[in-house]
Amino acid sequence: MKGCPTQNVTWRELTIGRPEREALNRHKGATVWLTGLSGSGKSTIADLLAARLHSEGVHTAVLDGDNIRHGLNCDLGFSPEARTENIRRIAEVAKLLTSFGIINMVAFISPYSSDRDSARKIQGDGDFIEVFVHAPLEVVEERDPKGLYKKARLGLIKEFTGIDAPYEEPVNPELVLHTHLETPEESVEAVVAHLRRAGILKEE
Amino acid sequence: MKGCPTQNVTWRELTIGRPEREALNRHKGATVWLTGLSGSGKSTIADLLAARLHSEGVHTAVLDGDNIRHGLNCDLGFSPEARTENIRRIAEVAKLLTSFGIINMVAFISPYSSDRDSARKIQGDGDFIEVFVHAPLEVVEERDPKGLYKKARLGLIKEFTGIDAPYEEPVNPELVLHTHLETPEESVEAVVAHLRRAGILKEE
Repeated sequence: MKGCPTQNVTWRELTIGRPEREALNRHKGATVWLTGLSGSGKSTIADLLAARLHSEGVHTAVLDGDNIRHGLNCDLGFSPEARTENIRRIAEVAKLLTSFGIINMVAFISPYSSDRDSARKIQGDGDFIEVFVHAPLEVVEERDPKGLYKKARLGLIKEFTGIDAPYEEPVNPELVLHTHLETPEESVEAVVAHLRRAGILKEE
Repeated sequence: MKGCPTQNVTWRELTIGRPEREALNRHKGATVWLTGLSGSGKSTIADLLAARLHSEGVHTAVLDGDNIRHGLNCDLGFSPEARTENIRRIAEVAKLLTSFGIINMVAFISPYSSDRDSARKIQGDGDFIEVFVHAPLEVVEERDPKGLYKKARLGLIKEFTGIDAPYEEPVNPELVLHTHLETPEESVEAVVAHLRRAGILKEE
């Protein structure tokens, strides 16, 4: 991460801040950071979770690896440096969404512990819910929903996480979902239960 | 702007999209892009507008030049290239907020027509409300709320818009606010009236 020259930039307090927006929404803002191998189920769970929460009147947003690289991060490639900058920007956007009282789901491979730790630091601890979406490599390679593992094995894609680039498993995430052992709906309910326990959503 | 390698990145349709979020919020998403010289009143109007809308139950967000450079764009300086990248990223975040059904106020000098045109192109025309926050240079230099014009005149700040960097006035903005001739409250009401006319907010 580059240095941050904040010279001649002053912090401004706004009339409507996070508490006012959370009061309007009747829930708190938070970032549900889904990390895991390609094909582990991150995007599926983010989508289902958004639908589940939306049906209860919760204000949600999804930042999806497949989507955001078309926009904000379309200038970034897949080198370690680019992946780090990718995650940094996403974490900053997630922080903004949280500050606007929105429960945002972030679904990115985010393979490096140091990047996820930076994202947590950017967010602030209580706002950051790290969810390890876990399935063994042989399972996700068998699923291969986008045919990317096949391409990576053939050498047509370089630096593919799990094949020729590392995935560093979370050591102490808020939640682990075993998507080869439970249904997506069960995974979603586990996240919702965590959001209630953490006081982000009200108890039913 | 760099090229956008979207190879191996697929667009995913999500269950909860913009129409569903706008239905929950009971208003549409849009970006109110406030452009003008430092000291013209952009941030004041963004803040008052957010408060005015929030009091009606509208879901708002403010992206403020002073704030966002501490976070997402803390790696960017003030060269023409950095200003362009600054605006590009802000436009992408504003687009995300609009897609989440939020009325977002963007308060940045954004001095270059080409950058504002790019921002409009990123957003899509109907979602982008360009508001020229106008006051003559001698008025804003007299106001000088942060003492920046004084520093710029002394040569302590380089490339300062209006002094030794250009401000290109909008040719065909959706709205012009003359902040030396009207109160901030009057400016805010003019924006609200436009939002109603455009069907972004419901008629009262």
